[in-house]
Amino acid sequence: MRRLILLLTVLLSFLSISAQNKVERWRIYEISLNGDSNGNPFTDVQLSATFSNGEHLKTVSGFYDGNGIYKIRFMPQITGSWTYTTSSNSKALQNKKGKFECYSNTETNHGPVVVKNTFNFAYADGKPHYSFGTTCYGWVHQGDSLASLTLKTLANGYFNKMRMCIFPKDYDWNKNEPALYPFEGKPLTDWDYTKFNPEYFQNIEKRIEQLDSLGIEADLIIFHPYDRWGFKKMDRKTNDFYINYIIARFAAYKNVWWSMANEYDFMNEKKMDDWTHFIKLFAEKDPYNHLRSIHNGTKIFDHTNPLLSHASIQNDETFKAKELRLKYKKPIIYDECRYEGNINWSWGNLTAEEMVNKFWRGITNGGFVGHGETYVNESSVKRGFKSQDILWWSKGGVLRGQSHERIKFLKNIIETAPGYLTPVVNFESWMPYSAVSYKDEYFLNYYNMDQPLSQIVNLPEKSKYLVEIINAWDMTITPVNGEFSGKSLIQLPQKPFTALRITKISK
Amino acid sequence: MRRLILLLTVLLSFLSISAQNKVERWRIYEISLNGDSNGNPFTDVQLSATFSNGEHLKTVSGFYDGNGIYKIRFMPQITGSWTYTTSSNSKALQNKKGKFECYSNTETNHGPVVVKNTFNFAYADGKPHYSFGTTCYGWVHQGDSLASLTLKTLANGYFNKMRMCIFPKDYDWNKNEPALYPFEGKPLTDWDYTKFNPEYFQNIEKRIEQLDSLGIEADLIIFHPYDRWGFKKMDRKTNDFYINYIIARFAAYKNVWWSMANEYDFMNEKKMDDWTHFIKLFAEKDPYNHLRSIHNGTKIFDHTNPLLSHASIQNDETFKAKELRLKYKKPIIYDECRYEGNINWSWGNLTAEEMVNKFWRGITNGGFVGHGETYVNESSVKRGFKSQDILWWSKGGVLRGQSHERIKFLKNIIETAPGYLTPVVNFESWMPYSAVSYKDEYFLNYYNMDQPLSQIVNLPEKSKYLVEIINAWDMTITPVNGEFSGKSLIQLPQKPFTALRITKISK
Repeated sequence: MRRLILLLTVLLSFLSISAQNKVERWRIYEISLNGDSNGNPFTDVQLSATFSNGEHLKTVSGFYDGNGIYKIRFMPQITGSWTYTTSSNSKALQNKKGKFECYSNTETNHGPVVVKNTFNFAYADGKPHYSFGTTCYGWVHQGDSLASLTLKTLANGYFNKMRMCIFPKDYDWNKNEPALYPFEGKPLTDWDYTKFNPEYFQNIEKRIEQLDSLGIEADLIIFHPYDRWGFKKMDRKTNDFYINYIIARFAAYKNVWWSMANEYDFMNEKKMDDWTHFIKLFAEKDPYNHLRSIHNGTKIFDHTNPLLSHASIQNDETFKAKELRLKYKKPIIYDECRYEGNINWSWGNLTAEEMVNKFWRGITNGGFVGHGETYVNESSVKRGFKSQDILWWSKGGVLRGQSHERIKFLKNIIETAPGYLTPVVNFESWMPYSAVSYKDEYFLNYYNMDQPLSQIVNLPEKSKYLVEIINAWDMTITPVNGEFSGKSLIQLPQKPFTALRITKISK
Repeated sequence: MRRLILLLTVLLSFLSISAQNKVERWRIYEISLNGDSNGNPFTDVQLSATFSNGEHLKTVSGFYDGNGIYKIRFMPQITGSWTYTTSSNSKALQNKKGKFECYSNTETNHGPVVVKNTFNFAYADGKPHYSFGTTCYGWVHQGDSLASLTLKTLANGYFNKMRMCIFPKDYDWNKNEPALYPFEGKPLTDWDYTKFNPEYFQNIEKRIEQLDSLGIEADLIIFHPYDRWGFKKMDRKTNDFYINYIIARFAAYKNVWWSMANEYDFMNEKKMDDWTHFIKLFAEKDPYNHLRSIHNGTKIFDHTNPLLSHASIQNDETFKAKELRLKYKKPIIYDECRYEGNINWSWGNLTAEEMVNKFWRGITNGGFVGHGETYVNESSVKRGFKSQDILWWSKGGVLRGQSHERIKFLKNIIETAPGYLTPVVNFESWMPYSAVSYKDEYFLNYYNMDQPLSQIVNLPEKSKYLVEIINAWDMTITPVNGEFSGKSLIQLPQKPFTALRITKISK
């Protein structure tokens, strides 16, 4: 009888594990376990699993996903055979074992993004990642129909990163209630902060996956100040509880980035000690060391903090990327440099021209730049500012502007450069222009919105170069007749948005 | 016999004085005396005259004008009867006396410009002077034909101040030799620095007068760094000799301003002590206390120097006028904020749009802005950069750009405002926009090159206002229907260059 019970237990324990026996490298190996749904599974149950390929051990936390189901997600970074063993204070979840095969990543899977060569990014497989982000803060909280439209827009390949809030947002043009709430309870503020709403997080996971399928990184904003539900005021313990939960849920998605905050300095509820604590918590608890950043309102964070992978800047002087590189010795992303749009706030009424200009100036100074779009229509102005209009920046949907096509044009130029581009030291240092280069093989010079009829370029004497005139607005690339070497006078079309792409002629 | 000689001497002394017996207020009363032309009249002869209207005494220096003729120029600032007595170490020039009547200024004569209400300018008769300057550094050295063309252009009323060098200029597009040289001797560098060439200064005086007849102030640049003749390297004694001479010659012209230098910090030959010395010299020697400034290259001068009447700035961030007002407590003129043009130097290839934008941003931040234009044509680029092309900024001539008409449009708006405009404190302080106002009667708000579809304006509650939408580029002024009061939502055309003119409705 005891044997029978043991056998049944073993059988049941296998049955309760629904897991694949193979997984692609950098994809998710998920263990699903049935467990106790009494009491408060979120707080009562501890669950983790240790994965091993014989050489490396990695312990990852599990989480309660509702309806008596517990999950553990693992993103294998090494191909080959893996085994695991669970550990829990709940007998039903304790000491579950399994094995699976991790096979090579397919061609479209490059793995998570990491910092490369101090100032740049690459996917784990070595492919360079040039960050061209956009912002739809509340897009995951708008329901399927609008999310589908957003994804359809994104499928056009303008961007490879999305800044998005985990918590719903309360702000002009974000006044509707979200479809779901992160905690059990009732809006506006009657929450049981000890119980998550798994559906809420499942929805976000679906969006993270959808972004990933489009090659887009999900730059998840952990906290933000625009809130009417009380989530910005949670205490330290609740914040940690929340962070541990989202690490357990989201960290196995390869395209996840952690942004501690949007506009940390606008959150009076939190002190500097909170932010350094959160950064540290992610650094300690995320098994995969996803990129970590924190985004400012007006006061730029001290990005020398070694646990921050890159500087996430709000400031419209993208040309200062060169200075910030020296200051922080990290990749510099101007995630917010004002948005193309027409709203009454100055951060959201740039012309498309200025948005494009800010991208070019950031890039040719060795930084990366983020896009946003904030167009309202006239009837909305008449109705007032709290309307339900769908602005890309707030909810996603469609793009109405003119900058995103030009950003894609620039993205294509950068992605087809021969390597990571570095600011050219002393390039016309007293002039407001900038240039980046790859060794002596490739130069990209940008002359802003000025209109020179000519420029002198100082090329290495020992090689010959092809020169192409780019118009960043018209999206044209026109070769200049001849081959150039040394100090060269290039005639230009006397138009704003002129750039030069200069490529060494191989012998 | 002694009596006869005495009589003859007296007669001759009267004959040798050619002077009017009346003069308009703020115009020039000139005494011309025949004297000795032996030796070096520039160094040997001291000459001055003391003018009195019974209440005020004013002593002014005379100067040698060549061919045995000595002159004393006086600009009476008070109407009524004046007498004078000369004083000289030369007997022929000594103790000459005369009298004349100063009559009221005519309608077109407002007198010299002075500082008014700390941050502004006015003519001596009280009429406000809003500085809208331009720059033709070498225009007086290009001969009559081109000067006539320059004056014809200026007659269109775009500008009311001209920045111009006293010494000839050596720079790209200023490579031709001047028609005249300021000293006796031979070019390039063989000069007798003890002997001026009166013709050289007569030519400049003619230009100063011609400008005055168009209502244009002559902002005379005393020293500048672009020189191949050695004038920038003169020693302290020669510099003082030169300054005393131009004060004696030019100071009586009501429209003269003294600019110690263009780009003082680019003149390695001179030290800070030289500049403070020159400023002091003008303050001591100029009988009329004409406006005094010094213009920087990259390092802004310390304009807190109490002997400087206003700050003459080179910097393209004209929106910082508001800050500079607080710093210097003087009128702020951005005499150089880059120029409209197409040359290879970034300071001379702004689009007309940016030039206009810089004017509006400067003005709506409580400053003044200067214009310049630097267009070359394509053939010039092919020939290289030292060509003889006539650029407005270098030599005058015609204007080819698109900013000057818009500057005139703005000038007209400012000149028809009800009074001096002051930056609105805390106007959307976190936004990049700016506004100036006259009391609670008049507001001028500018929204840069952004494209808001609406803006909220905070008007006083107790009055009603008319709102007009200005497009600073299209040069249109369109009234908004209705009367506004308190916090008002204004619909805008979603175009760059939008400004609002808001005028209180009188009861």
